[in-house]
Amino acid sequence: MRFFSDNAAPACPAVMASLVEANAQDTAYDGDAWSKRLDGAFSDLFGTDVTVIWVPTGTAANALALAAMVPPHGALLCHREAHIQVDECGAPEFYTHGAKLLLIDGEGGKLTPDAIEATAAAIRDDVHQVQPHAISITNATEAGRAYSPTEVAAIGEVAKRRNLALHMDGARFANAVAHVGCTPAEVTWRAGVDALSFGFVKNGGMSAEALVFFRPDLAAATRYRRKRAGHLQSKGRYLAAQLLAMLENDVWLANARAANAGAALIAAAAGDRLVEPVEANEVFCRLTAEEAATLRAKGFDFYDWGPGQARFVTAWDQGEAAVRPLADAIAGL
Amino acid sequence: MRFFSDNAAPACPAVMASLVEANAQDTAYDGDAWSKRLDGAFSDLFGTDVTVIWVPTGTAANALALAAMVPPHGALLCHREAHIQVDECGAPEFYTHGAKLLLIDGEGGKLTPDAIEATAAAIRDDVHQVQPHAISITNATEAGRAYSPTEVAAIGEVAKRRNLALHMDGARFANAVAHVGCTPAEVTWRAGVDALSFGFVKNGGMSAEALVFFRPDLAAATRYRRKRAGHLQSKGRYLAAQLLAMLENDVWLANARAANAGAALIAAAAGDRLVEPVEANEVFCRLTAEEAATLRAKGFDFYDWGPGQARFVTAWDQGEAAVRPLADAIAGL
Amino acid sequence: MRFFSDNAAPACPAVMASLVEANAQDTAYDGDAWSKRLDGAFSDLFGTDVTVIWVPTGTAANALALAAMVPPHGALLCHREAHIQVDECGAPEFYTHGAKLLLIDGEGGKLTPDAIEATAAAIRDDVHQVQPHAISITNATEAGRAYSPTEVAAIGEVAKRRNLALHMDGARFANAVAHVGCTPAEVTWRAGVDALSFGFVKNGGMSAEALVFFRPDLAAATRYRRKRAGHLQSKGRYLAAQLLAMLENDVWLANARAANAGAALIAAAAGDRLVEPVEANEVFCRLTAEEAATLRAKGFDFYDWGPGQARFVTAWDQGEAAVRPLADAIAGL
Amino acid sequence: MRFFSDNAAPACPAVMASLVEANAQDTAYDGDAWSKRLDGAFSDLFGTDVTVIWVPTGTAANALALAAMVPPHGALLCHREAHIQVDECGAPEFYTHGAKLLLIDGEGGKLTPDAIEATAAAIRDDVHQVQPHAISITNATEAGRAYSPTEVAAIGEVAKRRNLALHMDGARFANAVAHVGCTPAEVTWRAGVDALSFGFVKNGGMSAEALVFFRPDLAAATRYRRKRAGHLQSKGRYLAAQLLAMLENDVWLANARAANAGAALIAAAAGDRLVEPVEANEVFCRLTAEEAATLRAKGFDFYDWGPGQARFVTAWDQGEAAVRPLADAIAGL
Repeated sequence: MRFFSDNAAPACPAVMASLVEANAQDTAYDGDAWSKRLDGAFSDLFGTDVTVIWVPTGTAANALALAAMVPPHGALLCHREAHIQVDECGAPEFYTHGAKLLLIDGEGGKLTPDAIEATAAAIRDDVHQVQPHAISITNATEAGRAYSPTEVAAIGEVAKRRNLALHMDGARFANAVAHVGCTPAEVTWRAGVDALSFGFVKNGGMSAEALVFFRPDLAAATRYRRKRAGHLQSKGRYLAAQLLAMLENDVWLANARAANAGAALIAAAAGDRLVEPVEANEVFCRLTAEEAATLRAKGFDFYDWGPGQARFVTAWDQGEAAVRPLADAIAGL
Repeated sequence: MRFFSDNAAPACPAVMASLVEANAQDTAYDGDAWSKRLDGAFSDLFGTDVTVIWVPTGTAANALALAAMVPPHGALLCHREAHIQVDECGAPEFYTHGAKLLLIDGEGGKLTPDAIEATAAAIRDDVHQVQPHAISITNATEAGRAYSPTEVAAIGEVAKRRNLALHMDGARFANAVAHVGCTPAEVTWRAGVDALSFGFVKNGGMSAEALVFFRPDLAAATRYRRKRAGHLQSKGRYLAAQLLAMLENDVWLANARAANAGAALIAAAAGDRLVEPVEANEVFCRLTAEEAATLRAKGFDFYDWGPGQARFVTAWDQGEAAVRPLADAIAGL
Repeated sequence: MRFFSDNAAPACPAVMASLVEANAQDTAYDGDAWSKRLDGAFSDLFGTDVTVIWVPTGTAANALALAAMVPPHGALLCHREAHIQVDECGAPEFYTHGAKLLLIDGEGGKLTPDAIEATAAAIRDDVHQVQPHAISITNATEAGRAYSPTEVAAIGEVAKRRNLALHMDGARFANAVAHVGCTPAEVTWRAGVDALSFGFVKNGGMSAEALVFFRPDLAAATRYRRKRAGHLQSKGRYLAAQLLAMLENDVWLANARAANAGAALIAAAAGDRLVEPVEANEVFCRLTAEEAATLRAKGFDFYDWGPGQARFVTAWDQGEAAVRPLADAIAGL
Repeated sequence: MRFFSDNAAPACPAVMASLVEANAQDTAYDGDAWSKRLDGAFSDLFGTDVTVIWVPTGTAANALALAAMVPPHGALLCHREAHIQVDECGAPEFYTHGAKLLLIDGEGGKLTPDAIEATAAAIRDDVHQVQPHAISITNATEAGRAYSPTEVAAIGEVAKRRNLALHMDGARFANAVAHVGCTPAEVTWRAGVDALSFGFVKNGGMSAEALVFFRPDLAAATRYRRKRAGHLQSKGRYLAAQLLAMLENDVWLANARAANAGAALIAAAAGDRLVEPVEANEVFCRLTAEEAATLRAKGFDFYDWGPGQARFVTAWDQGEAAVRPLADAIAGL
């Protein structure tokens, strides 16, 4: 059984059904009936007027959001381990035309207001240094941690005070919200977030993510950037349909809860081995090379995560039942 | 009935079936079993070793191909009406980091060796002018015309002599090949083409195009550029599956033939109205405003194409039978 | 004697003296006493508050101006023969990160309001096409023609109506103003120009051009772009000093008048040979290959300008006296 | 007396004389007689065939060098405090079109082979991470330290082993060479350096730096990039003349020795206050706020360098005699 990544999971039934439903002639690009329903559906979910743009990947969502916030000669502040810094082959630099990512340390993959302040304050206000224009945080973080609304709001305060835009990379936003138990609004726009990369693919989608702008002014030029980047799919209705299908009946939340439950079971089995509290669907734990080999011999696949550590990720279809054998195997080490 | 664009058509049954088939856990990105079969399947089709990269749009395919051929300080030669110039919101400039498109006129959307030579010869060989590094042609052209292998080979000769790479935008490559009756090889690498944007979406696909490199050296850095552009979908198997499904049993060719047959029927009905010979699945014809209104009143939708002209595009599911009513209506004007 | 280009001329005495005068310790970059006097001196000249930024080349001035006006996904309108299109190796594309130059034909290197309107009106207002954000005109033009204030104002009207910024490439601005006999204000900001690349190097300077912003909002980010492009020279005072020296006592105007007078003398000698009216310091005239050879045999150097034509350019130190021998030689052909 | 920066110093007599000497008509851009002598003069100095390109600033030299080494989707390794990272407003990102700077710590502003290896080894060899293509070191470093040829050669070994290009930012190269007492060759190409930004402006020049390529293949496209960036000055002979004047009679070395001697005198006076060994023309030392105020009251200007520290920089015209009063004042604190 594979616990490499939630990227490896199949698409969920609601998504597959939506593709069939959308499979008729309709207007090209985002002029179709499905795409036109997006703003409304997400505005309902967030309890405020939002502008939503579908894109096929989280990298595209992140890079487009940042390009709307940071000029080429500017900078953005993010965690040293942020996906945008470490795992996107320089997509933010590509889309922003060379803005700089200024890296900040922080426990559990989180930024704190103090750390942001310290970094921003050290930048000379002259033309020799790139000036910060935005903050990007990841929720759930690269360490599988979830921000509380209060934590985000504190960062939102810094952003406001320093006139910085605030972006949230929510590749696993659903898992974070499911864990914290807050509303999507509380941990985003109510806390000062200006744009959210709302991930669906890892959570049971096939090929659609939602870039949600809480500030519509950021969306206008983004439509040009999306086309210019080759992301305006001509049959966009299939992307919109996926997103709508996952909003309906809160499939997005149910899927995330299932994945989280699987992770929680592994976490319980891991006990003292845990490197980080498990607050989403990722489990980071200590594992010797021998122990790792033992698990693999039993058919469990996962990533080594630095020396003596491993990462297990559960997906929407790897809830408690599917994960039980792995949990037992870990407990039995 | 809508004849706006083949982009408006649904996905064909083989493609829909492939998505279901691919809907299981597999390795993320392009490490899955489906993606790994791509090079082989396309190499078989072209009768030579090719490297294939899936992308979701023709714009992405074109821009990635050109970025592999032209440095930021260089130029490429293309038709004045080329899609890359007119309809991609500057995607080639984005991906090449600002290379210049030098525009050439030509009947039927085609470039000729002489026109290319004349343009290239007029460029001073000094650092003040951008130097050409590539030629891009569209097949079928923006005017719905198909290149013969001989015509492409003549351009390939110029490209070789001037040390220019040769790209073919094949958004409607299948329709062109179906019309000409040549093999895919004859009109591409055997004629000097280095990279082909092989379109599937307009031809019955959902969200996958194939960027085919006949020179593997061009593909290496492209993999980084694809990731950097946010086009490396994490569940890439769904794209690969679509392409494989359309190669199998020559679905791509059958679909194109059906669309072409529909267009031929319209063309026959249009007679003297034709502005261009119909060599693919697009029909450009003269139509007064009144005539256009008459057709629309009967439920036919299509684009006005400049004053007194209209464009009808047929799709894989708009073969002779589906198109008959439109043909009759045009004949009856 | 060389009539290739005013670029070949030496620096004038006032400029040489200014370098000596500025050759003392002062604050680096543009914090020095000379640089600080620039805004005032140019505001006096133009009779309005301007912001001035020194740069070493016209290409840098043009590209920085355009980058302040056009986003990467936008376009600018300019003449097909404009220096920014033909002779700057893609600098506008580099600084704007890939904006597109949309080319317009026009007699004498000039744009007309109608031609601009026609080009702008043909652009579809959707995300597939790059949208125009600016117009750039050259004064004196690439054909050595000078715009009248009325002509520029008519273009300024179009710009205003279409919400386009208006840039003037004034590599030979002094020559144009000297010819027309207007004030610098009349043909720039009073006519709707937002930024001017005010050339000094061809006109007797050594290494300093003035980028003049009539809209200060365009200047703010330009300071960052200038540094980012490596154009913020650490000993900037030598550039500022050159500009100030040429403003003082209207050296810039005297130099331009001298060069224009030289050109006028050649023009008079050329008579019917003239291809363009001579309205600055460039003379384009018909010359057979034999005639060209005859002149060269007498020691006169110049550019062939297409088949059967030649270009003679006079500089600040090539006034009537210096040019007499050439005029006589042409008259004697 | 000002000890802010060697950027504040005037141009030295040899440079001023060279401008007068070059002040005659000549071919534009770099077609003039002075520019043509550059390759030869620098090849003599380095004892190997080099290609030299003049530019007006160190930022331009650095950014052009790096653009020749690193593709947009790549990365370069440099010190966390490197000028290219901290003080150039993102020029490397601009010229490379968004390559990433991966930062390494190191004492005295120096990189070590081990630190480079550790950073490079941590990068996954996949398309999700930017791959390193070059190393950039600064000599003298931002902390005023000079590399020995042995130290550079050790880095050159890593570069070679990992197929990375090696760039040296030599804004104060002359001071470093003067201190170490090696030949320019020993600490550059003989040690594996591929390109050197050889600084002249801080060392008594006015507006010319030399970008020296020890690998001519790196220079070819750089000529286009220089033009495209607006750095190909039309009267380039004045830049070439400055460089030639400073090579002749080893003015560059004499100037650097004078500045170094001034710094050494301050260093001797500073004694235990020194934060870094003084190996060029910069002195970093501990100074309380009161002590700093005392010095400033006596007319000495300098930068605070973090809390409780100050930086004094000497220039070519601030040798022992000029610096004596400051040294005495420091000794008397």
